Amino acid sequence: MSAKVPIFFVFVMLFALSSANPSKRKQYTPCKNLVLYYHDIIYNGKNGANATSSIVAAPQGANLTKLAPQFHFGDLIVFDDPITLDNNLHSKPIGRAQGFYMYDTKNAFTAWFSFTLILNSPYHEGTITLAGADPTIKKTRDISVTGGTGDFFMHRGIATLITDTFQGDAYFRLRIEIKFYECW
Amino acid sequence: MSAKVPIFFVFVMLFALSSANPSKRKQYTPCKNLVLYYHDIIYNGKNGANATSSIVAAPQGANLTKLAPQFHFGDLIVFDDPITLDNNLHSKPIGRAQGFYMYDTKNAFTAWFSFTLILNSPYHEGTITLAGADPTIKKTRDISVTGGTGDFFMHRGIATLITDTFQGDAYFRLRIEIKFYECW
Amino acid sequence: MSAKVPIFFVFVMLFALSSANPSKRKQYTPCKNLVLYYHDIIYNGKNGANATSSIVAAPQGANLTKLAPQFHFGDLIVFDDPITLDNNLHSKPIGRAQGFYMYDTKNAFTAWFSFTLILNSPYHEGTITLAGADPTIKKTRDISVTGGTGDFFMHRGIATLITDTFQGDAYFRLRIEIKFYECW
Repeated sequence: MSAKVPIFFVFVMLFALSSANPSKRKQYTPCKNLVLYYHDIIYNGKNGANATSSIVAAPQGANLTKLAPQFHFGDLIVFDDPITLDNNLHSKPIGRAQGFYMYDTKNAFTAWFSFTLILNSPYHEGTITLAGADPTIKKTRDISVTGGTGDFFMHRGIATLITDTFQGDAYFRLRIEIKFYECW
Repeated sequence: MSAKVPIFFVFVMLFALSSANPSKRKQYTPCKNLVLYYHDIIYNGKNGANATSSIVAAPQGANLTKLAPQFHFGDLIVFDDPITLDNNLHSKPIGRAQGFYMYDTKNAFTAWFSFTLILNSPYHEGTITLAGADPTIKKTRDISVTGGTGDFFMHRGIATLITDTFQGDAYFRLRIEIKFYECW
Repeated sequence: MSAKVPIFFVFVMLFALSSANPSKRKQYTPCKNLVLYYHDIIYNGKNGANATSSIVAAPQGANLTKLAPQFHFGDLIVFDDPITLDNNLHSKPIGRAQGFYMYDTKNAFTAWFSFTLILNSPYHEGTITLAGADPTIKKTRDISVTGGTGDFFMHRGIATLITDTFQGDAYFRLRIEIKFYECW
């Protein structure tokens, strides 16, 4: 009997250890998921009532009401975009996406984002801060969750950006799928 | 006697496991706390000697020596603010808060921050990098600690911003309470 | 015999626990290392073909083709710099460093960085997002890894910036040593 005790304990112990930090399993199963949409209408000098973003910095020779030539390289855009649960611009917002992005390549459309999703609804209360590059030549356009507060206290994870629609410079909508792997 | 061994071990093991990652307890007791103040004097075209921050980008029609209309939407401000342990602008600084913020809403005073506290004193040596939204309509204005070096190597946590004084566009002071929940 | 079982188990358990979260050992041995170089040529109004970065925001009185006086305080530079494995600008790039930095002090050369290394080579596939202050008066110029994707999924760590060469405003090269302490 006593010879079996060690075996039994090793199993219990291994099981316990493997579940001690469940968010870090090799399978990388998310501990929480979110799918959201946000909607961006850039200011063009005439649409002040509807615009949700504005160019505030631009390279030499460009201006603040028209995206710069050379793949918009050097434009820095501040935004305050409504977040919705579906892809309809006119759905009731559940929060705002606030921050900035900038176009950062002269020979391709790539952007660098840093912003916060501020969720304030019956579903979610808290913020998710994100940062990363959007290299459109890659099949996955993943950026990182760098912080969270409220319902997302200390969370970490990955957000995948998908351009859901792009209507020239007038309007674009991003689908953002957030997978948290560290949830607290 | 041998029958009691398993029970004893289960208790020891559970206790050991629950303390294996103490910073992640459900109670969320901080592993370290800091309370600091930082002081911002924005450049207005005349106060170059005293100013600690400067508007460097602004929306169409605004300039760099006066905060923009529409709740300053689109202004991006670079700062290098002294940090003190109390709320006196003239106390000996223990470091600098360096980075930027931008006003990001057209119909309310909200800002988005990303900056680093560089502490260099007998008390602390290291940096704390922060990012997040400051939605003034919420009672808590929490932003995230996204990184740390030196004494704050790999730390993570939450920083609460509190406007300690606000004298129009001339001067403001923020109280920042940092609670680290992952300390290394 | 049964008296020895507890001792044996205590050792096994302690060993198992100490290796449960190996990336967080007190010795702080990195779980992964990278050494990279990136190369920055700032736009001066004439070098459009070669430039990899551009001033897009500047303080009152400064312009976008010449770094500002007062230690460049207030200049915000967007960059898309080639990354190489050695210090040769003309080596085959293994990726791009994309993001921005700004000069943030009026009486010293200090900068604040936030950017992403986008690696795309036979060696590495993924992104590393970084943020932090570069206080040149300190012997260590450490910034924080705030996120990672792909091969660097959920990684955290510290990056040390070293100015490898600085040729006035024409060209600089940074050596960046990244030590990951949380690798997944």
